[in-house]
Amino acid sequence: MMIRKPYLIFLGDERDALCAKTAFGLRDWCRGDVVGQFCLPGCQVDLGLPTLGFEDAVQAGARSVVIGIAPVGGELPEHWVEPLSRAGGAGLDIVSGLHSRLESWAALADSARASGSRLVDVRKVDRRFPVGSGVRRPGKRLLTVGTDCALGKKYTALLLTRSMSARGIHATFRATGQTGIMIAGAGIPIDAVVADFVAGAAEALSPASPPDHWDVIEGQGSLFHPSYAGVTLGLLHGSQPDRLILCHDPRRDRIDGFPDFAIPTLSEAMRRYEEAAQLTNPCARTVGLSFNTAGMTDKDARRAIDSCSQAQGLPCTDPYRFGCETLVDAVLA
Amino acid sequence: MMIRKPYLIFLGDERDALCAKTAFGLRDWCRGDVVGQFCLPGCQVDLGLPTLGFEDAVQAGARSVVIGIAPVGGELPEHWVEPLSRAGGAGLDIVSGLHSRLESWAALADSARASGSRLVDVRKVDRRFPVGSGVRRPGKRLLTVGTDCALGKKYTALLLTRSMSARGIHATFRATGQTGIMIAGAGIPIDAVVADFVAGAAEALSPASPPDHWDVIEGQGSLFHPSYAGVTLGLLHGSQPDRLILCHDPRRDRIDGFPDFAIPTLSEAMRRYEEAAQLTNPCARTVGLSFNTAGMTDKDARRAIDSCSQAQGLPCTDPYRFGCETLVDAVLA
Repeated sequence: MMIRKPYLIFLGDERDALCAKTAFGLRDWCRGDVVGQFCLPGCQVDLGLPTLGFEDAVQAGARSVVIGIAPVGGELPEHWVEPLSRAGGAGLDIVSGLHSRLESWAALADSARASGSRLVDVRKVDRRFPVGSGVRRPGKRLLTVGTDCALGKKYTALLLTRSMSARGIHATFRATGQTGIMIAGAGIPIDAVVADFVAGAAEALSPASPPDHWDVIEGQGSLFHPSYAGVTLGLLHGSQPDRLILCHDPRRDRIDGFPDFAIPTLSEAMRRYEEAAQLTNPCARTVGLSFNTAGMTDKDARRAIDSCSQAQGLPCTDPYRFGCETLVDAVLA
Repeated sequence: MMIRKPYLIFLGDERDALCAKTAFGLRDWCRGDVVGQFCLPGCQVDLGLPTLGFEDAVQAGARSVVIGIAPVGGELPEHWVEPLSRAGGAGLDIVSGLHSRLESWAALADSARASGSRLVDVRKVDRRFPVGSGVRRPGKRLLTVGTDCALGKKYTALLLTRSMSARGIHATFRATGQTGIMIAGAGIPIDAVVADFVAGAAEALSPASPPDHWDVIEGQGSLFHPSYAGVTLGLLHGSQPDRLILCHDPRRDRIDGFPDFAIPTLSEAMRRYEEAAQLTNPCARTVGLSFNTAGMTDKDARRAIDSCSQAQGLPCTDPYRFGCETLVDAVLA
């Protein structure tokens, strides 16, 4: 799935910044690919970017308008259809990660057809993949894995890619979820792939590359999650990672939203991930830990990180808060 | 997915009995639901059932014509469309496990529409499933798992269900693959479900039931298979099995078609399956082994089985060859 950059970020008339995580993610992670923001009357979200109309955005080089808001329920609000169809009419691809399919709105389909622009549903998988081959391919691979969902696998992968690139290492972020795909402009929404083809899709996501090139792959789900572990395992097997970074939230002792399911110990999690990964890459091993310490004091965060690092004998950091150079060192060691 | 029985089995003009595994499976496993076979000129496969035309089959009570042949390539031969459209016109549902979608043939769609019959693609998942909840539900569950694909998980589950029923135990075979679904007349083709929903589909496949009822669930893939382990894990987590039966081919030391991938030891396989299963059912354990000894002499088969049983301290049998009463005893113990 390829998305055409640069972007105009559509904020609608959203009032709640919490619903604008995608918009902020795009601003923070691909600022150079964003020409501005588009707001409807009443909008109270502000990315601090130039506010542009559709024609101005096209003039500024934009190729796509990206819906940066995830409204409660995940459906496209009806009163956004008219402005979005004007965006399509202006020649911008319309890019959405919502549950509603863009083509189900005739006005959007018509505007795109008339101008030759595209409707891009990031959650939708059009392409067919082969089943996983298990065949090793050149290039190096790193996968972020987690003790649970939603604790920093995407951000860790993005930060590692950025740090590795800053060191002159050839590294590519490989996106597996909708926000990651919008940031990268490409990727595969791995949990939307038909089950039989998940490992094959993961192989396709991270194809053969030069021997010194690193693919930094965004993990999904968790081996310890009762809903999604199968997705996690298929992605792990197809990715054939040489290195794993284990992501964890030190204050979470239960799977988010599943109070009957305990978060495993870090040693147990590393053992299980390595054991599973070694099916397709016998050299796979965990080289560091990434803690999500949002909401903790600096002192508490430091203490949690240092204690983990000592106990596991591996570098541990909150890459967002304290940088990730120690993790990059460990990956490259 | 529900298929209307009884069946007429369509054999086309097939000459190779190896392509007729589905037809033989239906004859062997739901003989009471089959009114006869339909052959085109040149057909050399014979199930030993009455050969009937479509009208005669309808007179005999048939509700569906089931394509019992898997031609090389998995596509529907063009010269079968005309006779199948006559079957549809006679009021029979047309049931297919082939890759080609039945509705892609206008003649089939037209004949079904005209007579009010249905086109049933067993590989296709129309229904949407919720994600797995991880919530325990009443009833007992048994899942067949394997050291590889294609070594008897379906047959073991069918034989166990038959033996349990013969003992007066309430047991239901739950089908997860196309042949199993045709035999059962219902089921979910689990590997065709979108990855995010595999565990949820497995929960739906085997819903809450009376406390003394057993669901005997057909396993898919293998945790040790580089292509399909994710499907296997999602099915395992959603099934929440109390008991596992490990299926194995004692002559196979490599994953079929994947010479770089070793079959694990039986102890290792049991440990890994139990560890994974215990996420959603802490009581899950392996209670017996099912060997596929097809092609071995009786003496060699016996030796392999006895040696395994002794080494593992668990009952082992080839249920097809030597019966499965020891396994049923172990399941119920």
